[in-house]
Amino acid sequence: MNSVSVPRRKDLSRTEASRPVGVALIGSGRMGTYHGATLAQRLPGARLAAVVDPAPGAAEQLAAALGVGSAYTDPTQAFADSGVEAVVIAAPAQFHAELIVAAAGAGRAVFCEKPAALSLADLDRAIDAVRAAGVPLQVGFNRRFAPDWVAARALLDDGTLGTPRLLRSVTRDPGGFDPSRVAPGTIFNETLIHDFDALRFLNPGAEAVEVYAIADALVEPDWRDRGLLDTAVVTVRFDNGAVGVAEACFEAKYGYDVRGEVFGSGGMATMGDGRRTGMMFSGPAGRTVDTARGDQELLAGAYVAELAAFVDAVRGGTPAVVGGEDARAALAIALAAAESVRAGRPVRIAEVDK
Amino acid sequence: MNSVSVPRRKDLSRTEASRPVGVALIGSGRMGTYHGATLAQRLPGARLAAVVDPAPGAAEQLAAALGVGSAYTDPTQAFADSGVEAVVIAAPAQFHAELIVAAAGAGRAVFCEKPAALSLADLDRAIDAVRAAGVPLQVGFNRRFAPDWVAARALLDDGTLGTPRLLRSVTRDPGGFDPSRVAPGTIFNETLIHDFDALRFLNPGAEAVEVYAIADALVEPDWRDRGLLDTAVVTVRFDNGAVGVAEACFEAKYGYDVRGEVFGSGGMATMGDGRRTGMMFSGPAGRTVDTARGDQELLAGAYVAELAAFVDAVRGGTPAVVGGEDARAALAIALAAAESVRAGRPVRIAEVDK
Amino acid sequence: MNSVSVPRRKDLSRTEASRPVGVALIGSGRMGTYHGATLAQRLPGARLAAVVDPAPGAAEQLAAALGVGSAYTDPTQAFADSGVEAVVIAAPAQFHAELIVAAAGAGRAVFCEKPAALSLADLDRAIDAVRAAGVPLQVGFNRRFAPDWVAARALLDDGTLGTPRLLRSVTRDPGGFDPSRVAPGTIFNETLIHDFDALRFLNPGAEAVEVYAIADALVEPDWRDRGLLDTAVVTVRFDNGAVGVAEACFEAKYGYDVRGEVFGSGGMATMGDGRRTGMMFSGPAGRTVDTARGDQELLAGAYVAELAAFVDAVRGGTPAVVGGEDARAALAIALAAAESVRAGRPVRIAEVDK
Amino acid sequence: MNSVSVPRRKDLSRTEASRPVGVALIGSGRMGTYHGATLAQRLPGARLAAVVDPAPGAAEQLAAALGVGSAYTDPTQAFADSGVEAVVIAAPAQFHAELIVAAAGAGRAVFCEKPAALSLADLDRAIDAVRAAGVPLQVGFNRRFAPDWVAARALLDDGTLGTPRLLRSVTRDPGGFDPSRVAPGTIFNETLIHDFDALRFLNPGAEAVEVYAIADALVEPDWRDRGLLDTAVVTVRFDNGAVGVAEACFEAKYGYDVRGEVFGSGGMATMGDGRRTGMMFSGPAGRTVDTARGDQELLAGAYVAELAAFVDAVRGGTPAVVGGEDARAALAIALAAAESVRAGRPVRIAEVDK
Repeated sequence: MNSVSVPRRKDLSRTEASRPVGVALIGSGRMGTYHGATLAQRLPGARLAAVVDPAPGAAEQLAAALGVGSAYTDPTQAFADSGVEAVVIAAPAQFHAELIVAAAGAGRAVFCEKPAALSLADLDRAIDAVRAAGVPLQVGFNRRFAPDWVAARALLDDGTLGTPRLLRSVTRDPGGFDPSRVAPGTIFNETLIHDFDALRFLNPGAEAVEVYAIADALVEPDWRDRGLLDTAVVTVRFDNGAVGVAEACFEAKYGYDVRGEVFGSGGMATMGDGRRTGMMFSGPAGRTVDTARGDQELLAGAYVAELAAFVDAVRGGTPAVVGGEDARAALAIALAAAESVRAGRPVRIAEVDK
Repeated sequence: MNSVSVPRRKDLSRTEASRPVGVALIGSGRMGTYHGATLAQRLPGARLAAVVDPAPGAAEQLAAALGVGSAYTDPTQAFADSGVEAVVIAAPAQFHAELIVAAAGAGRAVFCEKPAALSLADLDRAIDAVRAAGVPLQVGFNRRFAPDWVAARALLDDGTLGTPRLLRSVTRDPGGFDPSRVAPGTIFNETLIHDFDALRFLNPGAEAVEVYAIADALVEPDWRDRGLLDTAVVTVRFDNGAVGVAEACFEAKYGYDVRGEVFGSGGMATMGDGRRTGMMFSGPAGRTVDTARGDQELLAGAYVAELAAFVDAVRGGTPAVVGGEDARAALAIALAAAESVRAGRPVRIAEVDK
Repeated sequence: MNSVSVPRRKDLSRTEASRPVGVALIGSGRMGTYHGATLAQRLPGARLAAVVDPAPGAAEQLAAALGVGSAYTDPTQAFADSGVEAVVIAAPAQFHAELIVAAAGAGRAVFCEKPAALSLADLDRAIDAVRAAGVPLQVGFNRRFAPDWVAARALLDDGTLGTPRLLRSVTRDPGGFDPSRVAPGTIFNETLIHDFDALRFLNPGAEAVEVYAIADALVEPDWRDRGLLDTAVVTVRFDNGAVGVAEACFEAKYGYDVRGEVFGSGGMATMGDGRRTGMMFSGPAGRTVDTARGDQELLAGAYVAELAAFVDAVRGGTPAVVGGEDARAALAIALAAAESVRAGRPVRIAEVDK
Repeated sequence: MNSVSVPRRKDLSRTEASRPVGVALIGSGRMGTYHGATLAQRLPGARLAAVVDPAPGAAEQLAAALGVGSAYTDPTQAFADSGVEAVVIAAPAQFHAELIVAAAGAGRAVFCEKPAALSLADLDRAIDAVRAAGVPLQVGFNRRFAPDWVAARALLDDGTLGTPRLLRSVTRDPGGFDPSRVAPGTIFNETLIHDFDALRFLNPGAEAVEVYAIADALVEPDWRDRGLLDTAVVTVRFDNGAVGVAEACFEAKYGYDVRGEVFGSGGMATMGDGRRTGMMFSGPAGRTVDTARGDQELLAGAYVAELAAFVDAVRGGTPAVVGGEDARAALAIALAAAESVRAGRPVRIAEVDK
């Protein structure tokens, strides 16, 4: 229902339209499947050229469903495929850095789901590889492509909001997770890393200097002793004095909740109304709007828009709009947050990024 | 930002995906261009097979921009094209009925922009032709595909809203029209016909029995004497006692405004918040959300969804979800409204549909 | 939560504060009780001097509850009471005109609940009496004192909204009425008369010229044959070309619903969000705000503000801000609406006001 | 527009109404003047018996404006006044504790603006004095009386919101302050103390255990070196695991902004829409609602309701609904926050309350 939700192709020349970018998808899980369908069906500028998944039959199954001929179990097969210009990495996080390095080494442009790596050292290797290869690297920070955030950033860029003072970014998942499968650090590396990037996106030019985090198992308190962190609040102090608060929880009874707020010297922007539609029902219980229940519902437009931007960058030979350095800055905040919980005190970014 | 805005292709088999429906576009004006881009780029299940426009060079230009090989000046060329299974008619309204008849005669499925005809006699010929040919006919009543309206209808279908009592449908255009080019009846045939259909959609199973309309030139009062009607209010009495009010104006300073309301024994649904995004700016003037400025911004999702439904009907051989009888019922209300303005009294549907 | 809800007494001099206006309340029913409590407890500038009710014991009971010494069964007793400067008439509608005449004859300022009379002839007698006596007459058109409407009118007065084109006013009661006790014409005389006044308030300087009404028994269809009208839609054409739609229903499952809309050449104002508070609950059913369930909840601020304005007029010897001519214009629309239902056609104001 | 904004006096007996509680106001500044007008004019159950202010002429002036006979420069005169049952302390914060002790010593019930004291030792003396005298002490934590907060608390009390996990409380003033007159600690003691109490109110039964605060001069950076803190974010960890974030800024371009959020296992409540009215204007800039520009506009209803509750407690001999222990707990958080800024680390409540 907004300008980003249906991609506009304003100045498509026939040449462009007739030469969609061939993209290999690596990883056929939940997010991979969504990205695969986007590449195959929602983006005229892209062509899903191959699906890769090491699990037996997984790539074949998704490839068949999407009408794609090439299915591989080994990513190197995709990198060697001449129809593959670019890769979308939606594999588990621990393989991201290695896959970026390999794809870049093969000269393929890379879109990588967040986090681009789990350590700064790994990420630096990936960034170096990409630079050496001269290919674009884009990371999956989808909020930068969500219409509300795009609109807020425009008010920062044109000066309306003035200098940021206080920022907020919230992610609450709809629940239903299995606490036994949540790796340590997940809430920082996988969930809040979106919020850390969102805070940076809304405080352009500033960088985080210190982080204080509180995290606990409030959804599943029985798992507290086994180290589960399902709820967290992270305070991020920036070098321009602004303070951002990022918070996350793995369970919200009302669905998937992604919101933001930036308050500056010129006013405030708030983002993320969480509505499923604009229809409001007035009944015995009052006035109700339905809320989005999942990320692929809430962020559908952003998920498509980020791949559209990536494909445009690949075709145009331009840098990705959110790249390795952004991934690095957000990861550093995530690492500092995890260390802050361990240490019980504020942690400077410099402590985790020496 | 909602479930309809990015079309979901839940159970695409490879066969389906590999056999997109070939569609010819007839008319390369504003709406035709949008539908053409949808067929070429936004709908994986469709293939834009040809563009038709009698104006010299017009079809070629759009076809080139969309990467389509076939451009015709005569629709019969498209009907004879073996790659064309279906047509989307976005020509001026006076040609609609004739084009439907011709397309159906050639065995092509038809999607026709509203109004499907300008008289009931013409429309009946078109409906007969379609029936005789056994092809689906869908009319461009986009509100049935807009998420808010879909959600409201669901509350009617599951009984939550109870029996409708009062309904409202509003269309306000953003202005900038040329009064010298507005044909008589435009506000009823071209604009309010959407609202008449919306009222019917929100009062399922009921039919209009009497119509009372007031219309005037309030935007361009200098054109009143030349018969311009740019603002109208139409009251529609239905056979279940419910009363609907449709109103339209050709100029709203805040953009394109499409809203609806259905109030029944169980409560009320309101549709159409008109927001461009969910971002809210709080500043010296208060708290502001931006509003959509054009129909292709506000209704982008609905425009894609209606063609997706059409293509599905063509592929599946199923009837269109909004067809000739719906077009007929809405046109009858529009004709009664025009007659009511002329006569200065309520007009029964039976008076215009003898 | 708004500027009207708690009356401000900006420039109270000690003299004013020490001389509250003595007011007699006539009628101790639901609305009378509320007005009585306002005069006794909510308005420092007023003093409830007496309560009048012909029902045995009724006046005494309310007077005792409110700490007032004088309770009468005959209004002439109140008019003769030297502590009574003004009267608030909250008796049944059929006695209004007569009471206004009598109160004015005794030199008392008059606040009268709507409708000020049930016929134009009666109302003219009342207006004449008030003029002859030189006392202020205010009628209980509360919407003029509700914050949203006050704010909308300000945007009309400062030109922001431009020239009105389309207006809307809605009143829906929360239900629970006894159909056997609804007098004919109630929906026009008692309910929609508020909306007719609201339309006039939002179209300053214009007057109604023609009215078309549809009304039916949709809440209690079994009472249709006995003449019950519980749901109505009234279209009002004004002499400046603007068209207003007033609608009412005696039962809304979600509470008491009073809304308005004025759309002009400069934009649109919408009034009446119906919220009980601004608190929003997000839970399994989505996002919900509670709605007001009764008029004294929704319009509490307006009910106090209208009496504050009346008391100010009495003290200051200034005309009432909404007086006899406003009552007359709204009543004429109500009478035309009733006639329109009877005749099944639009009725000109001139037909009912010869 | 809500149930609290106009105080309801449900079961007033004549005796109660005829015996309003005599209250002396101490302090005739901005807030004192508002409370004075409430006692004199807005609360039928209260009588403003005296005004006290040491500044020459100040008490006389306000007393005259409010029609009160007694004006004193020394509070002991008020305590000795037999018409004074209770006092409302709106003097500067440094005198609060001493005034509470003196008023209690004279057997007067006490309503004291926040903070009730500036040190825990002073506050303990005040609490002891009140206990010894057996008089009620209420502190001016107005948010507990604001309709949105009352409604949210009801959802906590009935279990709908479940167990709180994350809380938020925001106060932003409209600006225009003089940085040279802001005492150190103001943002914690005077502003955020409301938010600390609000967090406690929304996490019933839990207590704060640790506080981490960041504060800076972002509105007036030139005053940073002189110790000004005009913007702050405070994270409060509670003993039930919930985490609250309180934030404040002395300048918001859009007015006075007071909001809250409580997210629990059952859902989320958000409070504080900041609207001046519910009127929405749609114009060239989009859709706008006006925002409240000052606390006495935004919180008018709460300011009256807190004094109504106090007067009820005095008359009924019941404890105040928000008393000394609540003041103490909020002050401890404020002191810990100030210490956290000084120390640059989280501070346990036990460190400031030994």
